[in-house]
Amino acid sequence: MIEDLLKHYNEPTIATVCSHSSLQIFDGARKEGFKTLGIALKKPPKFYDAFPLAKPDEFMVVERYSEIADRRNELIRQDAIVIPHGSFVEYMGAERFRELEVPTFGNRKVLEWESDRKKERQWLEGAGITMPAQYSLDEVDRPVIVKYHGAKGGSSFFIANNREEIEKRVDTTQEFTIQEFVPGTRYYIHYFYSPISEDGYRLSKGTLEVLGIDRRVESNIDEIYRLGSINELAKLGINPSFVVTGNLPLVLRESLLPKVFEMGEKVVEESLKLFGGVIGPFCLETICTEDLEFKVFEISARIVAGTNLFISGSPYADLIEKGLSTGKRIAKEIRKAMDEGRLDEVVT
Amino acid sequence: MIEDLLKHYNEPTIATVCSHSSLQIFDGARKEGFKTLGIALKKPPKFYDAFPLAKPDEFMVVERYSEIADRRNELIRQDAIVIPHGSFVEYMGAERFRELEVPTFGNRKVLEWESDRKKERQWLEGAGITMPAQYSLDEVDRPVIVKYHGAKGGSSFFIANNREEIEKRVDTTQEFTIQEFVPGTRYYIHYFYSPISEDGYRLSKGTLEVLGIDRRVESNIDEIYRLGSINELAKLGINPSFVVTGNLPLVLRESLLPKVFEMGEKVVEESLKLFGGVIGPFCLETICTEDLEFKVFEISARIVAGTNLFISGSPYADLIEKGLSTGKRIAKEIRKAMDEGRLDEVVT
Amino acid sequence: MIEDLLKHYNEPTIATVCSHSSLQIFDGARKEGFKTLGIALKKPPKFYDAFPLAKPDEFMVVERYSEIADRRNELIRQDAIVIPHGSFVEYMGAERFRELEVPTFGNRKVLEWESDRKKERQWLEGAGITMPAQYSLDEVDRPVIVKYHGAKGGSSFFIANNREEIEKRVDTTQEFTIQEFVPGTRYYIHYFYSPISEDGYRLSKGTLEVLGIDRRVESNIDEIYRLGSINELAKLGINPSFVVTGNLPLVLRESLLPKVFEMGEKVVEESLKLFGGVIGPFCLETICTEDLEFKVFEISARIVAGTNLFISGSPYADLIEKGLSTGKRIAKEIRKAMDEGRLDEVVT
Repeated sequence: MIEDLLKHYNEPTIATVCSHSSLQIFDGARKEGFKTLGIALKKPPKFYDAFPLAKPDEFMVVERYSEIADRRNELIRQDAIVIPHGSFVEYMGAERFRELEVPTFGNRKVLEWESDRKKERQWLEGAGITMPAQYSLDEVDRPVIVKYHGAKGGSSFFIANNREEIEKRVDTTQEFTIQEFVPGTRYYIHYFYSPISEDGYRLSKGTLEVLGIDRRVESNIDEIYRLGSINELAKLGINPSFVVTGNLPLVLRESLLPKVFEMGEKVVEESLKLFGGVIGPFCLETICTEDLEFKVFEISARIVAGTNLFISGSPYADLIEKGLSTGKRIAKEIRKAMDEGRLDEVVT
Repeated sequence: MIEDLLKHYNEPTIATVCSHSSLQIFDGARKEGFKTLGIALKKPPKFYDAFPLAKPDEFMVVERYSEIADRRNELIRQDAIVIPHGSFVEYMGAERFRELEVPTFGNRKVLEWESDRKKERQWLEGAGITMPAQYSLDEVDRPVIVKYHGAKGGSSFFIANNREEIEKRVDTTQEFTIQEFVPGTRYYIHYFYSPISEDGYRLSKGTLEVLGIDRRVESNIDEIYRLGSINELAKLGINPSFVVTGNLPLVLRESLLPKVFEMGEKVVEESLKLFGGVIGPFCLETICTEDLEFKVFEISARIVAGTNLFISGSPYADLIEKGLSTGKRIAKEIRKAMDEGRLDEVVT
Repeated sequence: MIEDLLKHYNEPTIATVCSHSSLQIFDGARKEGFKTLGIALKKPPKFYDAFPLAKPDEFMVVERYSEIADRRNELIRQDAIVIPHGSFVEYMGAERFRELEVPTFGNRKVLEWESDRKKERQWLEGAGITMPAQYSLDEVDRPVIVKYHGAKGGSSFFIANNREEIEKRVDTTQEFTIQEFVPGTRYYIHYFYSPISEDGYRLSKGTLEVLGIDRRVESNIDEIYRLGSINELAKLGINPSFVVTGNLPLVLRESLLPKVFEMGEKVVEESLKLFGGVIGPFCLETICTEDLEFKVFEISARIVAGTNLFISGSPYADLIEKGLSTGKRIAKEIRKAMDEGRLDEVVT
């Protein structure tokens, strides 16, 4: 179906929902000469006026996000290729997004593997990635982090030191996972997998890049030490929360780059086996321990907001092409696929 | 008076005190083709020799900062426009600065609204901004931060969990404010208000921009967790301090940008009503809570040192003009005002 | 010996071990038009394929790092100048590195002053630098950090509040140092000393630059507060570690730059007296206290990994030359020395 549509595409318009990493996506698309279309709720967001280089050429205003599916013809008429991001998927609903009959950058099959914690673990552990251990309630013998399923942005995670603490705090009406708390420092690594490139770090098919690294800034956990330890604060009724509010830029020790690429490579190879490959940008969310080992606690299978730090390049991307952002990298991938008549290999 | 002076200005010289953000101000002014003048205490600072692109064309050496007022003729002879920054105002004294009879970028009336905690609160709350709650001693029912008036750089702030702790620690010979301690993560947002621009994010008059975001690095609070919790350390006689030593770069979730611009918009509109407007750069110093709400604990009504991170652009400024710094933005504003014969609208 | 070799050098090849800051070193060398050679263990690292702008022109594959010395003729045949970095020296062994008969950028005499904690202290304190106080076991009257000698990357440091805690934890079979724990915020300042430049911040001979500032990210200490205070965690058997995993970018208050340059100046001047000078990049690892004083806890006398953040410039380097990295700065120094027939003044 999508493949048939693509055959008639001449000059794609890059379209996405006006949130998350849309400024970067539009900026990157414009740098590669694409037309751009912003999908906006109720009205075009005024804040775009403040960023002329990232303002899309046109807006499609919807009353609710579910409307996007109904207005697919408008999108297709403009040769639109939709770039998914975290808010796009969340606002529309994963189910509905998966069935959106508009050409979408990346492999939409990744959604079912990423949104279900069990399948995510199957994918990553199948790839040979080390994840934090998972416990049942009576196995807990060390500090753990308790995560509710479908919890948004970490607002309802909590940390516990033993079984008693969990029992005291846990909301048993919800499904939850008990994960080992891994002491270390967090690195969110921005990868890009191209199934159609041949130059670079070669995989069984295509190439792998690293475009940047960030650390998420989580409220209130990341500054709560200013008031006391989380154990002291629990007694005052103040509990830590893990809501992502922003990002800060990082680099990793260069001697860890071989491991970083091996992890990415294994994740892509496994994805090729499982569902045809995680195409385009993805992010491994890692903790680097004192033994310089990575534990991956999550994967995001599309552009992450941490890439917004690197709109004009990063210490990694600049070694590929000066000033390269993930948004621009997506646009370049689409351009190359168009030029080579292989759009159906990166757009589904 | 200043207006009369401006009528005779031909080719302005950008002047500021050699500290705070002066490297950036001079670098920006030079990029826009202005002559530059550094006001230095005792002798030109040697460190400028290390930064050839930011070294001012000339220095004016003063024995004490109060001398600047006496030497106004020298400044005016060079068509000097003075760029105020935090150290400039602090070194000279707010009173003396306000009366300096040399054309100054921005609206000097802002000083009285910003330097007095009560008027600052009147301005911000009048604009509909949420600030941390303020308590009298017997209202305290949660963690608070106690701030002495006129305290420099936070060296004498302290955190307390209840009334008893405050009474035990507070120096009652000084005036102080008791502020709610808001758990969350800090974002210092760099705005720029232009009363003479028409393109961009429009206000009732002029436009608003966001040029960058930083987090201040405060000594010793920001690394004190390495030694223990602040409560444990209090018992060892080690107390937290809040002295700004530097800055690190951040971005915010893109979905918060509408709120960021609304806050800026309301602050400018209120300032237009109260005193003719906060012209040029200003900074809202915020805490982003786990509910993704901002509480503004302070405003700086001029260029802040956090902009020094972004001397060659930021993830926000680069979407306006690649490589734009706040220093350069100031210079562009002066250039535009000159070209349009409207210098008196941005210089007072 | 090395001097004789240099007389026959025509077109140098920049060579280094493929780790630590090698991407930056090669990128910088290529920007200045040099050929590049990567020294790799067992095989060329695949990750270089992902960074085409930093991939060296050729590789020299060794079975073990000690082999580098044996293969000096191959290096010399290519007019190789070796750029030392932390991993290079560590992998080869300081002793063996010092005796490597291949031209090396910088003054290899610095090694003995830097690798021995006593001589390091003699150098820095001799220069008038303030270091954290050092105690014998019975002098301890405040929080201290206990450092084993030759400990790699801080994995075995520990923090203690008093003599009893040290006695309980210390491994007395190893040599160790007891250092005052200085509350404050860490700044790792990247200097560059050129003995052959005349323009800039002048020293008794040559010039001094500041190219950037970072903060090291240490695992697990830097995020351990997320789980509790280090004292609480000690009771659970979880101890802090200080293993460097990466870096984040910072700027310092501009008013501290005079102190920053004075420290660098004194360190260079003392090094000129002691051993002919710390040539090229070096880093002072500092804590900035609440009194805005710096305490220097260590010096690295070569390129540090924190410079990897600034592969395309920094808020400091961009005021010297837009886009300048430490890697590029090294290449420019070699180019200038070549052009002026003074290679022996920067290569030993």
